[in-house]
Amino acid sequence: MQLNHQSILELDERYRRNLINSIHGAKTIALIGSKSKDGVSNLAIFSQIIHIGANPPVLGVLFRPDSVNRHTLDNIRDSGHFTYQNVKSEFYKQAHQTSARYPDNISEFNECGLSEEYLSNFPIPFVKESTVKVGLSLADEIPIKINGTHLILGKVELLEIDDSYISSDGFVDPFLAETIAGGGLDAYYSLNKLSRLSYAKPGKPLEDI
Amino acid sequence: MQLNHQSILELDERYRRNLINSIHGAKTIALIGSKSKDGVSNLAIFSQIIHIGANPPVLGVLFRPDSVNRHTLDNIRDSGHFTYQNVKSEFYKQAHQTSARYPDNISEFNECGLSEEYLSNFPIPFVKESTVKVGLSLADEIPIKINGTHLILGKVELLEIDDSYISSDGFVDPFLAETIAGGGLDAYYSLNKLSRLSYAKPGKPLEDI
Repeated sequence: MQLNHQSILELDERYRRNLINSIHGAKTIALIGSKSKDGVSNLAIFSQIIHIGANPPVLGVLFRPDSVNRHTLDNIRDSGHFTYQNVKSEFYKQAHQTSARYPDNISEFNECGLSEEYLSNFPIPFVKESTVKVGLSLADEIPIKINGTHLILGKVELLEIDDSYISSDGFVDPFLAETIAGGGLDAYYSLNKLSRLSYAKPGKPLEDI
Repeated sequence: MQLNHQSILELDERYRRNLINSIHGAKTIALIGSKSKDGVSNLAIFSQIIHIGANPPVLGVLFRPDSVNRHTLDNIRDSGHFTYQNVKSEFYKQAHQTSARYPDNISEFNECGLSEEYLSNFPIPFVKESTVKVGLSLADEIPIKINGTHLILGKVELLEIDDSYISSDGFVDPFLAETIAGGGLDAYYSLNKLSRLSYAKPGKPLEDI
């Protein structure tokens, strides 16, 4: 199939949404935890996530203001904090279920069968079942003019990861942590490790490290 | 291991870079093709990629101005166009090799053993070996103040994907397209499909679709 810009715009809306959400292949998915002014915890699955930088340590999450995830955005703006955790294959259905439109006074933690865990005085709950837990503070909010979305930058304030998933050089292996990836709006993939490759230099053969 | 913001800042720089580049798990990787004013084609692997929206169809790629990928950013600013394509397991080592620092007058296509392919008068070459090919025009450039990176927004102008990878509802399956995912700065993963899940509603059991 070959499509140009105009023919993409003329596609059925649902077809276009599935298509354009999936052309970039496998992607990071994660559960974002937050808490409302009224103290109701919220948990939502996200797939528009990007590493912004390591120093300072910052992650970015893109929010659509009109989506079911609006609660999460409101909560982050109010409290200034949120949690980020990986999705494991054993609870990906529970993670997907967090995308349902629950009322404001309902916590997705309970409704979807995932457990709240508080760590080190961080004000927002983590998902106990996750193996990679990141506590973040709101560092910046960048409006994306082209479609009215918002890129939320979170500074890493707290990190909890079992030592057994971390290589001696700091690499957290998503295969060992049983982290899965997403595809499109509703597909989930577990990982097979191919290898880590040595730093590339012109004319130098790559090695598995 | 539990770390707070201050203890992360105090880590060895290389350890911190590996750690913070890998805490968000598996991520999209892709090859970005571009062309210099002098007509030299350039190909580079990227892992900071985000879906921005489906209408208009837009992808975002984060650039570090000081990296080896500066050539790509200069080229995109000059020509206003670039290509995006998936990495398959059969050529992930060639894709990784594009991250080596080649001189300005050298094309990574030839050096790394990947083939140029021109499609439908699009001015920038695609990677022939890829199964998902996206031609983009520069739509916006958003400075990220917190660390001086730049989020480049590309509008989808051309799409070429074999029909056999596309479901009837528009979903492009990265498993069928043999797209792989990345981890950290140098790890690569092939995918196992778990399932696609039905649209989540409160109180309604999920189904595999």
